[in-house]
Amino acid sequence: MNDRFLRACRRQPVDRTPLWIMRQAGRYLPEYRALRERHGFSTLYREPELATQVTLQPIDRFDLDAAILFSDILVPAEAMGFRVEFNPGPVLDAPVRTAADVDRLGHVDVEASVPFVFEAIRLLRRQLEGRVPLIGFGAAPFTLAVYLVEGGGSRRFDRIKPLLFGEPETAHRLLARVTEVTTSYLTAQIRAGAQAVQLFDSWSGILGRVEYREFALPYARKVLEHLVGLGVPRIYFALDAAHLLPEIANCGADVIGVDWRLPLDEAFDRLGRRHVLQGNLDPCVLLAPPDRIREHAGQVLRAARGLPGHVFNLGHGVFPNTPIESIETLIDAVHSPRH
Amino acid sequence: MNDRFLRACRRQPVDRTPLWIMRQAGRYLPEYRALRERHGFSTLYREPELATQVTLQPIDRFDLDAAILFSDILVPAEAMGFRVEFNPGPVLDAPVRTAADVDRLGHVDVEASVPFVFEAIRLLRRQLEGRVPLIGFGAAPFTLAVYLVEGGGSRRFDRIKPLLFGEPETAHRLLARVTEVTTSYLTAQIRAGAQAVQLFDSWSGILGRVEYREFALPYARKVLEHLVGLGVPRIYFALDAAHLLPEIANCGADVIGVDWRLPLDEAFDRLGRRHVLQGNLDPCVLLAPPDRIREHAGQVLRAARGLPGHVFNLGHGVFPNTPIESIETLIDAVHSPRH
Repeated sequence: MNDRFLRACRRQPVDRTPLWIMRQAGRYLPEYRALRERHGFSTLYREPELATQVTLQPIDRFDLDAAILFSDILVPAEAMGFRVEFNPGPVLDAPVRTAADVDRLGHVDVEASVPFVFEAIRLLRRQLEGRVPLIGFGAAPFTLAVYLVEGGGSRRFDRIKPLLFGEPETAHRLLARVTEVTTSYLTAQIRAGAQAVQLFDSWSGILGRVEYREFALPYARKVLEHLVGLGVPRIYFALDAAHLLPEIANCGADVIGVDWRLPLDEAFDRLGRRHVLQGNLDPCVLLAPPDRIREHAGQVLRAARGLPGHVFNLGHGVFPNTPIESIETLIDAVHSPRH
Repeated sequence: MNDRFLRACRRQPVDRTPLWIMRQAGRYLPEYRALRERHGFSTLYREPELATQVTLQPIDRFDLDAAILFSDILVPAEAMGFRVEFNPGPVLDAPVRTAADVDRLGHVDVEASVPFVFEAIRLLRRQLEGRVPLIGFGAAPFTLAVYLVEGGGSRRFDRIKPLLFGEPETAHRLLARVTEVTTSYLTAQIRAGAQAVQLFDSWSGILGRVEYREFALPYARKVLEHLVGLGVPRIYFALDAAHLLPEIANCGADVIGVDWRLPLDEAFDRLGRRHVLQGNLDPCVLLAPPDRIREHAGQVLRAARGLPGHVFNLGHGVFPNTPIESIETLIDAVHSPRH
């Protein structure tokens, strides 16, 4: 088995830097678009056979060092009883707006309510046959709470933030509930066979440091600490969060994912010089010519030289308009860097 | 004349912290919405009498310490011959995509091409009669270049960034042209009577530090240095740029505007402990109850205590759904802080 990814997460020596790509199973792949013509987006992640097929597409095509479950970040919201539609971004039917809405959130049995996720993981482990490890994932509690309150994506965050500023107790009760769901969701993924998990805190970067310390960090840490006994690497990735790195240092993850805004060595310094890092090529570099892709990938590898471990990735999901050739160039540049 | 704002910018003692609000002339005001029902958005900034009326609306209603010209950030693009429509965000008719597009950009005489801006400033100075100083503004070169290349706002910036990464020479030629236009645009505003200017670098936060140092900072600095002899305070504001503060420290502005992501004292530290700061209440606080507005405004004022100068502002433009009462509470909290 190719265990480069797991070894790098665990600070063990590797023959070369492991590489996977956020959203590696997705729209930039013609074979994904072909499937998508026949099935709705939610069918692709709700049908274990289809989710398995999509997850394996980039593994079959490219020499990547990890697979990541194809799913949607709002599956835990579905488990909580929300109806999610895609238009094309996710839209929730009945967002959480009041203390009474929070009170109405009942007990959630994730294994019973979204069994397709765990079935896909079991299928994937069989079909991967140890080729590469399988990563599971979920939204961090703050990010999931943003979706529940905003009712989807947002530009101004003028529903969640007034809740934090105006009704902090309600916000904390919601976050506590979401933390329970996220914890059992990731626990069940690991029990089904996920060999690592990534917690996506996509929206925490909208917070100032004070609010991050109160509303995001403690809940992400609680999830990550719950999982520590299960023995798989735990990755925490917050987008646009360079200002939060001194706090993120204390989230309890084995690996910290960082976006492109700071070079890896500077991010490492701001995190206290002790973490394994994942990242951080700007996905827009993959829209530039091959020699620039090699050059920028080389910069990332050089900035990572002093780290206790490095998993190469983009600083954000790969864009749908990325040429396949760019991915091939990137993989070659990471596999055979020209120093 | 109320010169609190100018005094704070110049590190002179003030009787109380001056306050103005980004987008203080705009949609949250019923008197603005009433005008907007009768006139298109572009008419409001293209007709000097209307632009003057809109600029004065918040000054007549609230006890603010500065007025800011009501205009659009893409007026310099109009001066360069681009057609801008609003849908509702700005859309350019013929974005800059190639080296040939950059070559086609001709000489621009801003005073001849967008005379309405300078006429509005002259009218405003007469009608303000010294009540408060008048601030002019423009987009920083990188931000204006983003609009020209993306053809409007963007979410992925997958036009401008491939240009930076793939064709840096073309990007530099575009930025040099945009820098000339911005410099003459702000010079003409000051000559017409603007008593301070703010350079809005709304998009530079999408850049990593390396790219900011190459493509944004030198051009913003060039504009700011050109204006230094004109004797008015020069404010530089970059949104979502906490990771860039050590570079922003060298932009040459008298005042650095910062958003809410770092408390003012931490931003001051990261800037090298020498700048006057403007900011930085999260605009979402104004959607919370009055006691929370007072509390958060007090936190901003306390964090600003050690600065050589502080201009109170939001960390981003005020939202259209902000209650008038929240603005009144904020002004009172800044004028009469309860320590």
